Parts: sequence; C-alpha cells; structure tokens
Amino acid sequence: MYAWESDVPELRKDPVVGRWVIISTERARRPSDFSTQPVLAQGGNCVFCPHNESKTPPEILVTRSPDSAANGPGWSMRVVPNKFPALRIEGELEPAGEGLYDRMNGVGAHEVVIESPDHEATLATLPVDAVADVLLAYRDRVVDLKKDPRFEYILVFKNHGAAAGASLEHPHSQLIATPIIPIMVLEELKGAAEYFEIKERCVWCDVLRQERRSRHRVIMESDGFVAVAPFAPRFPFETWILPTRHRSAFEETGVEELRSLAVLLGTFLRRMDHVLGRPPYNYMLHTAPLHDGPLDHFHWHLEIIPKLTNVAGYEWGSGFFINPVPPEDAAAALQEGAD
Amino acid sequence: MYAWESDVPELRKDPVVGRWVIISTERARRPSDFSTQPVLAQGGNCVFCPHNESKTPPEILVTRSPDSAANGPGWSMRVVPNKFPALRIEGELEPAGEGLYDRMNGVGAHEVVIESPDHEATLATLPVDAVADVLLAYRDRVVDLKKDPRFEYILVFKNHGAAAGASLEHPHSQLIATPIIPIMVLEELKGAAEYFEIKERCVWCDVLRQERRSRHRVIMESDGFVAVAPFAPRFPFETWILPTRHRSAFEETGVEELRSLAVLLGTFLRRMDHVLGRPPYNYMLHTAPLHDGPLDHFHWHLEIIPKLTNVAGYEWGSGFFINPVPPEDAAAALQEGAD
Repeated sequence: MYAWESDVPELRKDPVVGRWVIISTERARRPSDFSTQPVLAQGGNCVFCPHNESKTPPEILVTRSPDSAANGPGWSMRVVPNKFPALRIEGELEPAGEGLYDRMNGVGAHEVVIESPDHEATLATLPVDAVADVLLAYRDRVVDLKKDPRFEYILVFKNHGAAAGASLEHPHSQLIATPIIPIMVLEELKGAAEYFEIKERCVWCDVLRQERRSRHRVIMESDGFVAVAPFAPRFPFETWILPTRHRSAFEETGVEELRSLAVLLGTFLRRMDHVLGRPPYNYMLHTAPLHDGPLDHFHWHLEIIPKLTNVAGYEWGSGFFINPVPPEDAAAALQEGAD
Repeated sequence: MYAWESDVPELRKDPVVGRWVIISTERARRPSDFSTQPVLAQGGNCVFCPHNESKTPPEILVTRSPDSAANGPGWSMRVVPNKFPALRIEGELEPAGEGLYDRMNGVGAHEVVIESPDHEATLATLPVDAVADVLLAYRDRVVDLKKDPRFEYILVFKNHGAAAGASLEHPHSQLIATPIIPIMVLEELKGAAEYFEIKERCVWCDVLRQERRSRHRVIMESDGFVAVAPFAPRFPFETWILPTRHRSAFEETGVEELRSLAVLLGTFLRRMDHVLGRPPYNYMLHTAPLHDGPLDHFHWHLEIIPKLTNVAGYEWGSGFFINPVPPEDAAAALQEGAD
C-alpha cells in the first residue's frame, strides 16, 4: 500500500534531453486500475449532452439561441474548463530545483470545446457552419488566453475514439495553455529558422509549391487551404492541412477563411471515414508561440493522424517511425473520387 | 482502387525537423485492413515454436544441445533474421533528392531473438540463465553487426503484448541496425555532451549518485546495476536500468555483469507483473553509436515502459507527456516487499 504524494500538477524537466513532462494526478489511479481501458460514457449519462450542463464547469464561450439561459440547453457549441484539468489555472509560476533536476508548479489552462449538442455527431457529419463555429471557438479562445502573460503556448487538439485517447465519445476537442513552448514546436521553429537562414524562404511555403506542382501527395484543396500527405509521415495516412498564403499565427485567420478551412476539414474527414472505415484519430494545431509576433519562417498547420497502428518499442526508443504506407499511396486513396 | 507503388523500403527525412522515417511496405496492407488489430498466432501454429524452425529464415546465433541439428528442435535460444524486415540487408547506401526532400534506400538489418522454446514463457518467468543468454545474444549480435561499415547504430528492443505492438505472442525481442543514428539517441548525446561540457561529469552518473543518496526513486539494485523511476517520466511506471559503473557501450559488458543484469531484469519484470497485472510493455536499449569509441559523457541504459495509457493528441502535438503517476509513487509501488 502507498499513497499518492500530491494532488497538485507539476512540470518536470528531463536532465538529459530537456524534455518537460506534466505530472498530473488529477485523474490518478491506483496501479491495479491501469489494466482496463476507461469506459466511454454513453448517451443518457453523458456529461456533455444537453440538460447535463451543470455537470461541467460553467461555460466560457457559447453559441446558443437568444432565448436560452447560460449553462442550460439551447446551445450549439460550448467551451468549458476541463473538469479534470492536466494543469491548474491558479497561481504564479514558481520554478524550483531538486539537486540536478528542474521542476515548476503546473500552471496552465485546459479547456474543452463541446462541438455539438448531438451525442452522435462528428466533425465529419456536422454541417459546415457548425464546423466553422468550432474553428472560430479555437481562434477566440487563443485570442483571449493570449492576454495572460503566464502562457507561452496554446495547443489545440482533438482525440476522437477510445484508441486515440478519448475518454468521452460526445464530439469534443481540447486546448492546453502552458508556460513553456512544447519541445515539438521548438524543433519545428529551429528547423524552419535554419531553412530560412539559408534559403530566405519559409520551408512550408516551399513544400506547398513543390507539392502543388508535382501533385504526388496533394489530397484535396479548398479556397486558400491544401490537404497534403507529408513526404516523411510518421503514421499511415498522416495528413497536414496548411493555408496556401503564408501566416504564422492561426488566430489571425479571418472568418471567411475559417469557413473555407471548415469546408476542407469536413470533406477530408468524410473521405477518411469512407476510405479507412471511420478510424479513431487525433489532430493537433501547430501555430506560432503566443508572443513571438508574425514570423517569416513559421507557417501554421493542422496535423491529422488516424490511429491505425500501434507505436512500439522501436519508435519509442529511436524516434524513427516505421510507416507501412507510402504517402503517395495514401494521397491517391484519399483523393475524392479515388474509389 | 490503387496499387502500392513499391516494395523496397526507403528512408525519408522530414524537411522541417530532420526526423527520418522508414517507409516499409513489406507488410503493406490495404486501407480497409487497418480497421482490425493483427491476430496473435496461438500455440500450435506459432512460427517461433520448436519443430517450426523452417518457417523462419535460418538461425544466425543459437544456444542448442550438442546433439541437435541446426534449424531443428533442441535449442533454448535462437536469433534469426526477421522474415518481414523493416529494412533490407542487401545493397549500398544511395542517398537521393526529390526537390527539397532527402531520401535513401532502406538498407539495414532486422533480427529477432527468440528467447525460449516455451511459447508460454516470458522474461519474468524464465530462469536467470535463460535471461542471461538473451542478454548475451544482444551483445554478440551487436559485436558482429558492428563490423558492417554501413551501420551507424543498432537498437535492441522488445514489444511484449499486442497493445505494445507485438504481432506474435511467443517470447521474443528484436534489433534493427540502421545507417543513421536515431534522433532520440542524437538528442541524448547532445544533451549529455552539453552537461559534460559544463560539469565535466556524466549526467547519468550524477543522476545515479543523487538517486542512490535520496532513495526517492530507486526501485531495486543488483550487483552493479540499479533500476530507477526517472525524475521526469513520459509514462506511468517508466523505469530505467543503468550500470552503476560508467560505460557508454553495452557490448563491452562482461559475462558476469550480464548475469547480474539478468537477475535485476527478471526480478523487476516479476515485480511489474505482480503490481500492474502482467501489463503489455516495451523496452529499448540505449547504447553509444557503433563507431564513436568509449564516450565520457554517454552511459548506456535500458528504458522499460509498461503500456498502461493511450498516447493522445496532446502528446503527439507537443512532445509534452502527461503522466498521472509521480515516479516517487511508482518506485514505492514497485519496490520489493512494497505490498
């Protein structure tokens, strides 16, 4: 028998590679609880369904009919704080040491975007206006949280399906604001800055030019956006959506552009569902750090990864992903009218 | 309908972050095949069981009774080439470009260590001599493959259980030799070199000193080896085993030392099975690159990660892992006699 030592989340830095992790016991479980997967809440008991609004923290942002009351039914999209946040919104940053190690209290924001009142809906089945509302919510929450000087980065992401890490099946996405820029974004910034230094061009702009010329890996386009299979994908059917015009900060995207992105995202997800049999998936929005201003070398993009294979020891030990599907084949399969 | 374009594995480099991936269609499947998990071969049909030796490529290294014939029954441990290798052993390295992208033909070695003739055995249940034989096989294969000048790195790893990526349940581990040093090893080398530059000490030696003094995260020890929960673990119950004496290359470990490592590894895996209910897991051996010679700043180690949680969008997008179990609690639970 032993007790969890603490219920306050903490950020810790690996002393070798400098990678930070979040130790968050908010949903801590005993060792024996790890043998089973979390159960997905079904229809009637779902905390995200209408009439269960009191089961979530109060809404931060909402689209609702004018005659409906806050935190009751009548909404089409709600943003609420995560009831089991990985990080805590309260407190100042307090870096500390422990011998050769570095730690920091786990300050951050963790919010949930409930994408529809319909428990059975998905971004693939929702009308384009509803998808555009979700994208607008991402933008508006980033703009609002950006005012908090404690935060350096906001990552918007989605877990769809239990195998992709979703603990609830009601359609939702999430965002986490952190006082630290995530290491994967730092690596993209560093690689892109090195490319810009040599070429004086944005590497993603060059990728778009080459892909749109060769067409080997272009999946589909809408006005101002392209979905491509990347040249060196980690996962089968990994897809990136990028704006064709250079822009580093997602939150500077206009309403009309977001609507065009919603068209492409919905169309892509319907294609993916059709070709891959409604797979579980994740997506992650990579945008510039909050306080960097417009960057010539960074280009925001959405990374979509269907969960089709298990990541195993070789990948975890090497960072070298083994992908059984060439992106040219993935693109051909996902193009509209390909079947 | 579409066809896979190629059946030759290829290495490709991401133009932004420089991460290489292996595109390997050896086990390529059609999109619709991804919706179900691979089926684990059961007892009678298992290609790794005795009397089925002809179903694997011929053995490269074996421990067998003196009166038994090669590639027949009578063995206790066999190493064979992987029948479905991620990389191909034949050919010279041929780097090539495609516009702004870099690619290389997929030259490498991919071998399987069949750890026991007993289909039901695991490293936790095998006698210490058998575990030591497996570790000796790792060492001997690394020493042999090191002679091939095309290879820069060999990663030894294990996938145990379907959820950890194993496609066969018969006890086995694997190694992959590559012409490129994996990015995760490069990151460890870089961080450790920076630490050594400032402190003139190996960072892992310092970690060991601090952990063995504080005891907060030490799980267990054997003569010359320590199992610790790392300060900033990515996964619940992640554990590192390190030699207490500084050494950068695993393959320079002596036979007696490997036996002591076998004692610790077997004991640890039995504790983990007991505390966590025989979880699926991976382990990965991080040793110095093949041709670097002895390094003052690198310290070989085995990383063990039970597969208890799903990695989800936040982790894939940020590299920032959310871990619900503090390593101090994991260590307390895994210590012998803790329950």
